[in-house]
Amino acid sequence: MQTLPVVAVNGVIGAQVSPLDRGFAYGDGVFETCKMLHGKIPLWHLHKKRLLKSCEKLLIPVAIDLVEAQLASLIASLAITDIANAVVKFTVTRGQGGRGYRAPDSVQPTLVIAVFSAANYPQSYFSEGVSVRLCNQRLSCNPSLAGLKHLNRLEQILARAEWQDDAIAEGILLDIHGNVIEAVFSNIFLIKNGELFTPDLSEAGVAGVMRRFIIETLAPQVGLKVHVKRLTITDLLSADSIFLCNSLYGIWPVQKILGEQTHVFNAHELTEKLQNLLNAVLVVQQA
Amino acid sequence: MQTLPVVAVNGVIGAQVSPLDRGFAYGDGVFETCKMLHGKIPLWHLHKKRLLKSCEKLLIPVAIDLVEAQLASLIASLAITDIANAVVKFTVTRGQGGRGYRAPDSVQPTLVIAVFSAANYPQSYFSEGVSVRLCNQRLSCNPSLAGLKHLNRLEQILARAEWQDDAIAEGILLDIHGNVIEAVFSNIFLIKNGELFTPDLSEAGVAGVMRRFIIETLAPQVGLKVHVKRLTITDLLSADSIFLCNSLYGIWPVQKILGEQTHVFNAHELTEKLQNLLNAVLVVQQA
Repeated sequence: MQTLPVVAVNGVIGAQVSPLDRGFAYGDGVFETCKMLHGKIPLWHLHKKRLLKSCEKLLIPVAIDLVEAQLASLIASLAITDIANAVVKFTVTRGQGGRGYRAPDSVQPTLVIAVFSAANYPQSYFSEGVSVRLCNQRLSCNPSLAGLKHLNRLEQILARAEWQDDAIAEGILLDIHGNVIEAVFSNIFLIKNGELFTPDLSEAGVAGVMRRFIIETLAPQVGLKVHVKRLTITDLLSADSIFLCNSLYGIWPVQKILGEQTHVFNAHELTEKLQNLLNAVLVVQQA
Repeated sequence: MQTLPVVAVNGVIGAQVSPLDRGFAYGDGVFETCKMLHGKIPLWHLHKKRLLKSCEKLLIPVAIDLVEAQLASLIASLAITDIANAVVKFTVTRGQGGRGYRAPDSVQPTLVIAVFSAANYPQSYFSEGVSVRLCNQRLSCNPSLAGLKHLNRLEQILARAEWQDDAIAEGILLDIHGNVIEAVFSNIFLIKNGELFTPDLSEAGVAGVMRRFIIETLAPQVGLKVHVKRLTITDLLSADSIFLCNSLYGIWPVQKILGEQTHVFNAHELTEKLQNLLNAVLVVQQA
């Protein structure tokens, strides 16, 4: 049995990657970070769809049955306690190449599957909410990459480097035009007059799986209307309530946006409703 | 003796990199691609400056004496014929990390030095010039990353994937606002009324070492004025002549920009003057 993290490269646990891998050379690939509960990945169908879509847009030929077979084999090698509550990260790159941006004629993608221990977030993040900062780092706009969970993540890294204070859970990111886009590792929703608003991500940002699940499944199930649109900082600060989401932690209310002026937000019954529904769905998916 | 390419990871030839390296995970690093002539790197002082500046901007602690020591040791292990005319690529990443964008408290950068055979470009590229396309792929704008030779290169990869025709040597890239910025692996200069113009790279693009050498050294030496400014596609197409440059091939005149309409450009004596001066400098640097 292995100790987490356990990482398999092309199905081989403990293997390494070539320094000529285009993932290493250029960030030429995509990734998915998923929750694992009792050996299963909740919302796997959505992760799979996004992985395929991202690879398709980047012209990386990925065989999803191979991904699933390697995952199954990796899980089989792990202790039941390790996969009770874990994080699984998939990385798919364009594989090895020569020097230069031109892709090799025959692409052999590299597939890395890594299993990490679950992050332990304080219970208060879910109940009372989190404090976040407004990042100085801006996101660039490019429709050809927007929405994809690709490996070019320097903007997120520079944003995350803006704070060391553990009391700050996340950082909100604007694009270079000043539109609210997302948080460093989360998507964002605003509640206003009993309806949901979330940024349009056609020019910047990562279209998260949890964001999609909220828009397409959770919100409709509680009768909530969702507007996907361009949102400004004024929209953000005048919201009745705000929450963040991702596939790992689910949904966190935002309690405070810290800055020159601290903006305090109230918890909202709709956020709690969505959290409860999500928990119920996760329980059902494990069964 | 080794056969090219020879790649050393942290000084160890043939070693691989961890799949948890942040270069592989996020493109969290920088690179330099340099010409090598008879075991020496022309313009190394400029490559070194840019490497240091890029690392500083990304908060990656790089020890340049270590880079130089590992390069010397790698060169010593190669055949004289291999280093007579080669390409040396340096990659520096933020090293291994855990899951998530936050950098580890103690960063141990990964240094990869790879020696490749020189690219063999046709002699006509230098004399008559090259045919280029105008890429559909656009470059995003972000002052925090502009100019750096960082590892987030998906835009260049998508641009390079636009053509397979070997008669096309390069692709010109505009930013999302339509400004001319660079080519996929080159910088660009326009000649108009006996003066040089090159795009301002404060929002997008890679500030190439050869571009800098032309602006600061070659152009002044032949009495040429250089304007660094925002340039439009109209500026490009109405230029008297155009040339591309990078550290590996030096200077290529642009003969044709292919597209719905093909734009043909004349060779220019100023380009030839710069080429001759560059060749003379390279000969001197080898001595």
